[in-house]
Order: sequence, then structure tokens, then C-alpha cells
Amino acid sequence: MSAPLFGSRVKIGVFDSGVGGLTVLRALLAEMPQAEYIYLGDTARLPYGSKSQATIARYATGSAAFLLEQGAQYLVIACNTASALALPEIRSVADRFGVPVLGVVETGANAAEAQSQTKDVLVMATAATVASHAYADACRVRGLRALEMACPLLVPLVEEGWIEHPVTEEVVDIYLHALLRAAADAHFSPDTLVLGCTHYPLLKDVIRRAVPVAVKVIDSAEVTARQAAEQISDIPGLRLETWGTQDGGAVRFFATDSVEKFKFLGERFLGMPIEQVQLVDLGG
Amino acid sequence: MSAPLFGSRVKIGVFDSGVGGLTVLRALLAEMPQAEYIYLGDTARLPYGSKSQATIARYATGSAAFLLEQGAQYLVIACNTASALALPEIRSVADRFGVPVLGVVETGANAAEAQSQTKDVLVMATAATVASHAYADACRVRGLRALEMACPLLVPLVEEGWIEHPVTEEVVDIYLHALLRAAADAHFSPDTLVLGCTHYPLLKDVIRRAVPVAVKVIDSAEVTARQAAEQISDIPGLRLETWGTQDGGAVRFFATDSVEKFKFLGERFLGMPIEQVQLVDLGG
Repeated sequence: MSAPLFGSRVKIGVFDSGVGGLTVLRALLAEMPQAEYIYLGDTARLPYGSKSQATIARYATGSAAFLLEQGAQYLVIACNTASALALPEIRSVADRFGVPVLGVVETGANAAEAQSQTKDVLVMATAATVASHAYADACRVRGLRALEMACPLLVPLVEEGWIEHPVTEEVVDIYLHALLRAAADAHFSPDTLVLGCTHYPLLKDVIRRAVPVAVKVIDSAEVTARQAAEQISDIPGLRLETWGTQDGGAVRFFATDSVEKFKFLGERFLGMPIEQVQLVDLGG
Repeated sequence: MSAPLFGSRVKIGVFDSGVGGLTVLRALLAEMPQAEYIYLGDTARLPYGSKSQATIARYATGSAAFLLEQGAQYLVIACNTASALALPEIRSVADRFGVPVLGVVETGANAAEAQSQTKDVLVMATAATVASHAYADACRVRGLRALEMACPLLVPLVEEGWIEHPVTEEVVDIYLHALLRAAADAHFSPDTLVLGCTHYPLLKDVIRRAVPVAVKVIDSAEVTARQAAEQISDIPGLRLETWGTQDGGAVRFFATDSVEKFKFLGERFLGMPIEQVQLVDLGG
């Protein structure tokens, strides 16, 4: 309501193929409540995971271009598949606007690098993300070994709303038991577990209870928000201090398919009501 | 190998958005082993369930046209979403070729009508099929009441390969308990349960153990194959008798995305090896 004191608020564009990226937006809002946000869920074209690299790059750059046209000054790619397979293409679009891009795979790997003493890391992710070996590759260039486990039932369990549910606990136990056994077989000494899917932060408590206490769980939503805040505070013109006493937490939501479904599912991920979602057509 | 005795074998086109329809093909092969089959899985554009009616109709008619161009003389729509939302559009394309079309929703409702004494029917299906109320509508015109239950975890459990698995048994129990309680609340006296998704025949044994013995389970793959055989035997030129001593079981498989994934998942649904899958581009 009040007029800007030291310039306008930074506008952060957040992109995911669906509503999962709202866990990243939630963490961003907690970390930088003064910023303005534009969230795009490309729900008409999900899931990205089963599509070819060329198609994913085309979808992701189109989505990034939309956020840039809406005035985004910083882009967070809260979609594991797009981060894994199309980050160079997204960066080349954003470069034309002079806008930095942060992807969830690199932030998860950065956090693992900072966290791990043993340099052996476990990753839980969707089948598509595991098949891309994006986390293993990002870990390798940081001097870490990574063992990835596809956990295809966790997204449907979260979307069914079975968060603190005995079935979900059992499924998490089964996946983690298999992952820890594979780690032992491979003579891994893991001390870090990366949640490599934006749906998994909702299962963080269940997962934490299922891993040995020596293994730290990295919530990629939280670490992405923290790294975005650090980067933004270093960029002239987007400095945190310039936000002054602005009113905060303004978010505009866009989806490419059913806004009702986006609202219904999305509120669970965001942890707060979603007032309005605008339908946007990005083509086939 | 042998030459046709009484004319060439009938060619049956089977269409689904993915590999689930292979349970219907499996039942068709058991019912009519002498026929030739052309199976198309529109895997590049799945899931259909989250898309608009206009988009589904466009995808489904394009897929049907492909099967007709390949010489299909009879079409089985083994996709619940396309059967529910685009059967008139598919029929209008097939009519131009003089080809009959059978959809899995109508065959499930036909079987329920023939089976049920109480005229109260339960339906387990995906969220998209339940939201369309296609089974309830098809049951109503046949003088049946239907109570539908969305079971979104069953498809991922089947695709994970957890068929005879304690987690799957527990999930089936939870869904059926809720469905039977809803039936009691609505003063329903159900004696029939329709499996309204082509993935569910793989869970038939688990589901049968979880329902009261008085409730008969209708496997929509089996009843679709039986009704297709009955229709085909009534159509001049496609008569079963004309198949004579032909070699049987010839199937050509087509998919619009990753043929490897189609083979890997598909063999589980078909219950036999899949030698070759051809990639076909039906556009965006």
C-alpha cells in the first residue's frame, strides 16, 4: 500500500511444470517476504519427465520467456526435469534480458557439497530425474559420489494428500531400505540425503524419521530459497536493502491448464490459500 | 505362414493413451487368437485425463485415423478417458471407413447391466474418469445406479510392479472400505464392482479378496474382449468362421514416444514379450 522508499521490489519468476514448485515458492516467501513473485505452472504440458530433451527445452524456454515478459528480474527453475535437461537453453533466453537463472538441481548439489563430510550422497527423485542422472553429474563435478533412487510412488501419495499416513511411511521405508542397502553394497558412506523432487519437502518429516540420524536430509526447496536470497543480495539493483519497508508476499499465479485443479492441489504445497490463478495459453 | 483359406484375417485396431490398454489386447488375444491386431499407445501425449474435451477428441480421432489407415476393420477404444469423452468424434471418423467402434466404458456398463440383480453398482476408476461421471451416466441409461470412487494410487502401484504387495493390499483395502461405507451411507445394495481402468485387471485378485463375496468383480478388459468377439461374429465379412486355419496372434505395436519404455512397461500388461514397437509421430 505504501509507496516505494528506495525503488520498486524485486520481481522473482518461479517456474515448474506443475504445482510441486510451490514448495520452492513457499520457501522463497519465508526467506524473502519483501519480494514480488510470478509463478507459472505449465500444467497443460506436464509431466515433462516422459518427454524428449528437445520438447522439454522448447516448453521450458517458452515458459521462461513468459515470466521474463511479465517483468521477472530473477528466475528460479523449480522443476527438476527442466533444471536437469534445459538449463543452458533457459539461460540463453534469460541472458538477453540480463536476468540470472537458478535451477533446483544445482542448488541441491551445492548444499550437498557444503554439507557432506564423507562426500557420499544419496538422492531420492522421480524416475525421469534419476534416468537423467542430473544429480549424479552435478555431484561429480563438485567432488561428490551420488547414489540415486527412483521413488515413483511418492508424488502420487503426496497428491493424494497421504502425508502423515501409514501407507506413506511404509513406502518411504521400502525405498530407503533399498537405497541404504545399495549404498552398503557399493561401499558408500553416505551422510547426506538430497530430496530431488519438489513434492518431497512435504514428506520431509516422514523421510527424516526413516533415515539414520547420521544422515542429514537436504530439502531442495529450502536450500534453493537460501541460495536465491544470497545471489540476489549480491546483484546491484536487486539488493535486499532497497526493499525497505515494502508490503510483501505479493504473488501472481499462472497455469496453462485447469485453474481449479491448480488451486485445489496448490494450496497444499504452498501451505496457504491461493486467491486467484490466471489461465495462460503457451501453445501446444 | 499358410495362405488364407477363406479370405484374410480380420484386423482389429486397439487404442489407448498408454500401455494400460494392453490388458484389453491380452483379453482379445485370448478370445480371438486368430485375428490380426494393431495396437497404438499415444504415449507422447498421455495422460489424457488432465486435458480438455476438445484436446482429447483431437488426439483420439487422430489416433483412430492412424489405425484406420493401417487397415483396421474394427476399433476397440481401450482408453477410459477417450471412451468417456470422445466416442462420438471417433465414431464419426470410423463411419467414413464403415468401421464399428467399441469403447471400454459401454462394455463395462453392459456387463454390469447383465450381471447386477440389485441394480446397484460400484465403480473404481482414475480421478479423471470419475470426474467425467462416464460410468454413472452409462449405468443410468441402463437402469442402474452407480457409485464411483477415484483410486489415483492404483495406476502408479501397478506401474511400479507392486501387484501382490502388502502396500497395494492396504491401499486397495482403504479405497474399498471408503467406497463400501459411502454405499452404506447412500443406502446402496451393491452386488457388482466395475474395474473402470485398464490398469486394474492386474489387481483383480487383490481386489477380489478385498470385497464381500456377494459382490462380483467385472474386469472391463475381459468383458470388452467378449463383446468385441460377439459383435465381430455378427458382422458379414468379419465372421469368425472365415478365419479358418490361419496362424494367429499377429500384433503390430505402435507408440508415439519412447519405444523402450513401452516395451518395458507393456510386457507386464500384456503378459508376454513384445518383440518390436514402431515409433509414430502424430503431431503435437
